[in-house]
Order: sequence, then C-alpha cells, then structure tokens
Amino acid sequence: MAAKLGILAGGGPLPGNLIEACKSSGREYFVLAFEGQADPKIIGEAPQAWVRLGAVEEAIGRLRAEQCEELVLAGPVKRPSLADLRPDRRAARFLARGLLSKGDNGLLGAVVRSLEEEEGFRVVGADTILADLRAVAGPFGRYTPGTDDEADIARAVDVVYHMGRLDIGQAVVIRQGIVVGVEAAEGTEALLQRCGELRGERQGGVLVKLPKPGQEKRADLPTIGPQTVAGAADAGLAGIVVAAGATLVIDPTRVIADADATGLFVVGITPGDYRSDYDTV
Amino acid sequence: MAAKLGILAGGGPLPGNLIEACKSSGREYFVLAFEGQADPKIIGEAPQAWVRLGAVEEAIGRLRAEQCEELVLAGPVKRPSLADLRPDRRAARFLARGLLSKGDNGLLGAVVRSLEEEEGFRVVGADTILADLRAVAGPFGRYTPGTDDEADIARAVDVVYHMGRLDIGQAVVIRQGIVVGVEAAEGTEALLQRCGELRGERQGGVLVKLPKPGQEKRADLPTIGPQTVAGAADAGLAGIVVAAGATLVIDPTRVIADADATGLFVVGITPGDYRSDYDTV
Repeated sequence: MAAKLGILAGGGPLPGNLIEACKSSGREYFVLAFEGQADPKIIGEAPQAWVRLGAVEEAIGRLRAEQCEELVLAGPVKRPSLADLRPDRRAARFLARGLLSKGDNGLLGAVVRSLEEEEGFRVVGADTILADLRAVAGPFGRYTPGTDDEADIARAVDVVYHMGRLDIGQAVVIRQGIVVGVEAAEGTEALLQRCGELRGERQGGVLVKLPKPGQEKRADLPTIGPQTVAGAADAGLAGIVVAAGATLVIDPTRVIADADATGLFVVGITPGDYRSDYDTV
Repeated sequence: MAAKLGILAGGGPLPGNLIEACKSSGREYFVLAFEGQADPKIIGEAPQAWVRLGAVEEAIGRLRAEQCEELVLAGPVKRPSLADLRPDRRAARFLARGLLSKGDNGLLGAVVRSLEEEEGFRVVGADTILADLRAVAGPFGRYTPGTDDEADIARAVDVVYHMGRLDIGQAVVIRQGIVVGVEAAEGTEALLQRCGELRGERQGGVLVKLPKPGQEKRADLPTIGPQTVAGAADAGLAGIVVAAGATLVIDPTRVIADADATGLFVVGITPGDYRSDYDTV
C-alpha cells in the first residue's frame, strides 16, 4: 500500500485531480494548501491545512504530524512580494541562498532538493500519480499539423529550447515563421490572449509548450487543459504542441472534444527528435 | 552637398525627425510614406507620396522620378496580411524568397540589400543623419543603476543576446533576477504595459533594449523616447538600458527630464562589455 501522500497545493485544477486520484485508489492523503494560491473550491472537503508560503516550519510540521511520507507539488505558485511572504526562520534560511531571484526551475529545483535531502520526504511528480493525464505521442484528436505548421513547430522547438535554458518560460507562439509571443512571467493564458489581439488577418500558427531542457520534472511540469484549447482557438491558432510523456493534460476527454470542435490539432512530440540536445526525460 | 534623400516612412515620430534634419541642413528630400503605417500628422506638409507596402514598383518609380539617390528607412512597419499586402510583381518576386516568414532582421536585411544591389540606391541608417539622437555612453540623467540593477542588467544582456540571435525581439524586462517579460511581435510599449500589470508589490527592475547581435543597423535600429520612459515608470521599473551609439533616442531632452522627474535611470552601455561575442557595431 502506497505511503500517505502530502499534496502541496498551488493554483489551478491540478490539486483536485490528485485528490480524486487518491480517493479512487483508496490512498491516504493530506492537502497542504498555500494561502492566496490554492483555490478553496478545488480543495473542497479534502483533509487540509492552509499555510502562508513563507510559513515553512508550520508547513513541514503539519506534513510530519499527518505522517505524510511522499509529497507532490501541484499547481502554479505566484511569486509573492517579500512583504507578503513574511518568511519564517526556515524560509529565511532558504531565501538567504538567493533563490528568490532564480527562475522557476532554479527555485523549484531547490525546493524539491531541500524537501528530500534536508527534510527526508520523498518528492514525486504529479505525472507519476496521474499517469492517465500524461500527454501521449502523436495527434490527440482528429486534426494534424500541415506542412506550414511543421515548419513553425520546428522553429518553435528551437526557441523554447533557448527560453528554457535561460529559465524564462515554457511556451512560444509562432505564426508563419514569425515569433508572435514568448511566455515569461505572465503565463500561457496571457500569452495566448495577446497573440489573439496581434493576429490581424493572419491565420494559423502554433502554441508550443515544452519542459525546459533538463527541467526538474517533479515541479512545474508543463500543463495544458480545456482553457489552453479555448485560448488557442480564440487566438486563431492552428494547433497546440506538447512533449509526449512530459506534459499533464487536464481533462483530456474535453481537450480532445474541444480541439475537434474548433478545428485545432493537439499533438505530442519528442523534443529530442527536433534537437538531439533537447533532454526532456 | 549631400544627395537628395528618400525617407521611407513607417510609423512613429522618426520620419518627422528626419524631415526636420533635412530642413535645417537645407538638404533636399522626399517622403515615401507607407499607407496604414506612416502617420500623416508626422509627415505634415513635406513633399510626399503614399504607397501601399506591396506596391514596390510604384515606390521605386517614385523614388527614381524624384531623383533620390540615398534612402533611409524610418519607423516601424507592421506586417500586413497577404490580403492587405496585395503584392505587385516586384513585391511578389521578393516574397517568393520566403522572406515574409523571416524575423524582422531577416526581412529588413533583405530589403536593404535589394534596394542597394538590385535597385542601385545607397541606404543609410537613420542614425547617420540624426547623429544627435544617438544614445551616449553612461547615464543620461541624474540617476544611475544600483547593485541589484547591475545584476539584472547583466542577466538581461544575456537574454536579449539569445532573443536577438533567434530574431525574436530587442527588449526584455528583468526584476530581481526574474524575467518578467520578453518582447516579440507586440513591441516594447505592450511589453512594458503587461510588466506593469504583473508587478504586484515587487519593486524595481530594468528594461534592456539592444540591437540584435549582428543586426542590420540601417533598419529597425532600437529606438526609445518619452513614451518608453513613461511606460517604464508606469511599470514601476528602476531604469532603462540601451546600447550606446546603436540606439536612437527620440526627444532626448524630454527623455532626460522625464527620467529625472520619475526617478528612473537611463544608461547607455556597450553590450560587448557584458558578452565579448555581442557584436553591435
């Protein structure tokens, strides 16, 4: 029987998927929800405690008291201002390493290492628990990329590779060879919205969202869902490309139905097929 | 006496600066303004003709009829849809090379080469005519970057270098080590606006806007002006960094006054001092 799971809940729907997975497999679990980040409606009636992001001692204490052995980080966490963070001693020690000025991958990688090496938890990726939500290879629905799209995809993989190496973001929109937008702190939704505003009469284009090269997969795994499909459709894009096996697809049935209904392709690729040095395993 | 100058006018105030410079030096000139791009208020009463971007034969014909020998490209040009472009035979021949799917540097570099090698004009950079508007080295006004800003600037130069090599954009906003936003097709103004919306309570940060490595300097030279200072101030940034000698500063007196009034630094650097392979000459 699997050890009790501590779900460290950030924003978005992912914590809810993990709660459901534990319930249906009969696994014990406890939700540690971050104030101002997690959505109470998503957490619902699950066994839970709410802590500030900066209250690391309290968080660790609750997870130990609940006898959680395995932890999973779920959902995006907005960076608070230092004033909002109000770090306790443990958080301050952590921050003293200058980690708040790292990109997401630098910061989250350090969080995972600290939880394992200093605190003795095991940290697993959300995708190991939600294996059904892992992006498959090839087309998800009925549409596939055309020749023009393939050229945009190849260029996009190259751009995301460099963005990722610089720890900037995971997503880019390319239309007819032109980089319309690059994701940084604003997130994929805001990226898609501005690409829609910029489209003029130009048609098509692709959203390519991939893990950063060598990314810590147990935190911040690229995620898409029905909202991504809706945003891409509104932006007039031809399709969405993700990394097979290294992306979570929230509500895949609806993703496929919505993509088919709006004429979008959604495709899982292996970035290493485009650039041999693009390691996403 | 200098040859008659053909001013190929895109958007923004730059064509007006060139008209003024010709008037005050007594140089003959003619404005070829692109429909839907140039601003009639900026062009004013100058000798002028308006053509569609796709009407290359007409444009070249007018420039020859006006006996322009030297040309200058001034102001940004939005990429039209193919339907809006309605390319004539000469434009179509040009487009057949797949240039519409190049980034700005690829496209504009090809335009400059074609005007010189195929059409026999000399093309000069706007900065050679507006030498007074070239960014100086060091601080423009009374404020200078602090230690935190210096770290953000160093990281930003690295990011812009990679963005530029991929022909994506010229500008990035970094705040406390985090890449808040990267400029692609949306332009610097839209970049600053979304960085303002994302700032929360975080303070400071820098806008770094530099030419792409090896960029064709006779087109699309990075430009800042009072609008950039206002946008950076609204976004809560600490300052603006440009490449000394390789940036045009529209209305430098007002840029300095506005920066001093809002507490921003504006500084000209040499990107090669940060990365020896960053060639901006």
